[in-house]
Amino acid sequence: MILGDLRILQRACTVLGVEAPVIPWEPGLPAVGRGIHVWPLTDLDPDSVPWGKPSALTGESSFQYIVKGVAACLSSHLAGIVTAPISKLGLSLAGRPYPGHTEILASKTETVRYAMMLAGDRLRVVLVTIHCPVREIASRLTIQAILETIELTHRGLTEDLGLIAPRIAVAGLNPHCGESGLFGDEEASTIAPAVKKAMRQGMEVSGPHPPDTVFLHALAGLFDAVVCMYHDQGLVPFKLVHFRNGVNVTLGLPIVRTSVDHGTAYDLAGTGTADCASLVAAVALAERIAANRRCIPGSAGG
Amino acid sequence: MILGDLRILQRACTVLGVEAPVIPWEPGLPAVGRGIHVWPLTDLDPDSVPWGKPSALTGESSFQYIVKGVAACLSSHLAGIVTAPISKLGLSLAGRPYPGHTEILASKTETVRYAMMLAGDRLRVVLVTIHCPVREIASRLTIQAILETIELTHRGLTEDLGLIAPRIAVAGLNPHCGESGLFGDEEASTIAPAVKKAMRQGMEVSGPHPPDTVFLHALAGLFDAVVCMYHDQGLVPFKLVHFRNGVNVTLGLPIVRTSVDHGTAYDLAGTGTADCASLVAAVALAERIAANRRCIPGSAGG
Repeated sequence: MILGDLRILQRACTVLGVEAPVIPWEPGLPAVGRGIHVWPLTDLDPDSVPWGKPSALTGESSFQYIVKGVAACLSSHLAGIVTAPISKLGLSLAGRPYPGHTEILASKTETVRYAMMLAGDRLRVVLVTIHCPVREIASRLTIQAILETIELTHRGLTEDLGLIAPRIAVAGLNPHCGESGLFGDEEASTIAPAVKKAMRQGMEVSGPHPPDTVFLHALAGLFDAVVCMYHDQGLVPFKLVHFRNGVNVTLGLPIVRTSVDHGTAYDLAGTGTADCASLVAAVALAERIAANRRCIPGSAGG
Repeated sequence: MILGDLRILQRACTVLGVEAPVIPWEPGLPAVGRGIHVWPLTDLDPDSVPWGKPSALTGESSFQYIVKGVAACLSSHLAGIVTAPISKLGLSLAGRPYPGHTEILASKTETVRYAMMLAGDRLRVVLVTIHCPVREIASRLTIQAILETIELTHRGLTEDLGLIAPRIAVAGLNPHCGESGLFGDEEASTIAPAVKKAMRQGMEVSGPHPPDTVFLHALAGLFDAVVCMYHDQGLVPFKLVHFRNGVNVTLGLPIVRTSVDHGTAYDLAGTGTADCASLVAAVALAERIAANRRCIPGSAGG
């Protein structure tokens, strides 16, 4: 089921040589017939939507697709949503200055505690701080923020992914975990206390682990996820391992939501050369999470 | 040629089942005969040197091996040195409180500008800041420090590794390079000006590149080295790619020096299970650098 625009999608099918028919759908109807089911939320003139050029029109459209997708999940008309990349420039031109999907989803579902997980079949990382300047990482880390991220990770791995007693590694912040305080003390002051609190709750969690080897141990199968203190601590190893087929999962939302882990790549728009591996993986993971959460859409459409 | 202790090395050979004879050597002599040539710099009682337990005695010995190795390179009796791991605790017990080899080498060769490169056949990273708390990274970055690291990288790649017109990528500091200043401005204020200055000197250098994809591009062959702003930005991807066979090279020294990129692993001492891949790679790289620098030891020993 695609939330989008019939004529824009038909144009894409024509240009890319996709022969499946585009079939309109709306909440409450069954999804019948073989083809691409589309819930048409806009009726845009293809001439006003050039390839790869964000505008106020497309920005507002992408915003509405997300908002209506969330509402349809909350009302159980959809089992979950998988988001494609959006343009921050388009959102901004439309007067919707959100930094990304996640903040829209948190706002529209009234979620305060959430975390970004990047998931692949070999490595999963979850971020304590996300779009934070390196200068501010250390001061934004709190025992509470780390503990909440560990808890969200544990819940995501058990309830969403169906793992039993998942093993969570928590990375340190500083090189060699600060080498006993020689270069940084956040491991002792903030990270270790959060790990201890999580242990006391019965979670199988360990750390802080030296950042430059914890991902190797996770790849070797010792851990089901690594809780990372900052964006690139998690994203650098994750993209090395899962460049093509990584999935972004928002933990803590009341709805199922996965996303591709790449940007708009507008330079490839309309060329048919974009790689859909991450989108395919995101759909598969959303199905798995929805099944584990027993999300069954209220109508026959799904 | 091993700088060490005859009896300690003989014990190691016995325990590990190495049958090659240990042959004493000293500067000025040719290295003749098949076996393990050792320049005996200490005469330790094996009973006073238990496996895997650093002491003031072994700390001082390791310090003397390094100091005499440097002197023998400076006097052209040796073409270069390859260092095995040392124990910071041993150094400290011996009243030699250096944080590592590199600082000893810089001090004994009176080198002010040097940089750590981690080198493998697929990826090379060079660090602008090394053992620096994450809290202080941003404030320690200066245009001058970044420019010097780029220059040392260029010189290392050309003069030491023999590359012609090497392509150097400079990583950003913040997630997505700060996304136009939204989360951090060091890319614009500090990194980009350093890259421009290096370009003006004629080096093939580019950046700042987003940290979470620049290593993928380096692995794909687009760059010969990545200049990294901090320890784990470089070490996390490097260890993922070259866990076993990475080599630590000190750029900027007047002598040839490579090192294993791992620690003492005292828990494995005497067990015969330690992996020597990094040491083998470090010896091979030292030979290559010495050949490129035309380092020919003054005597027949080398």
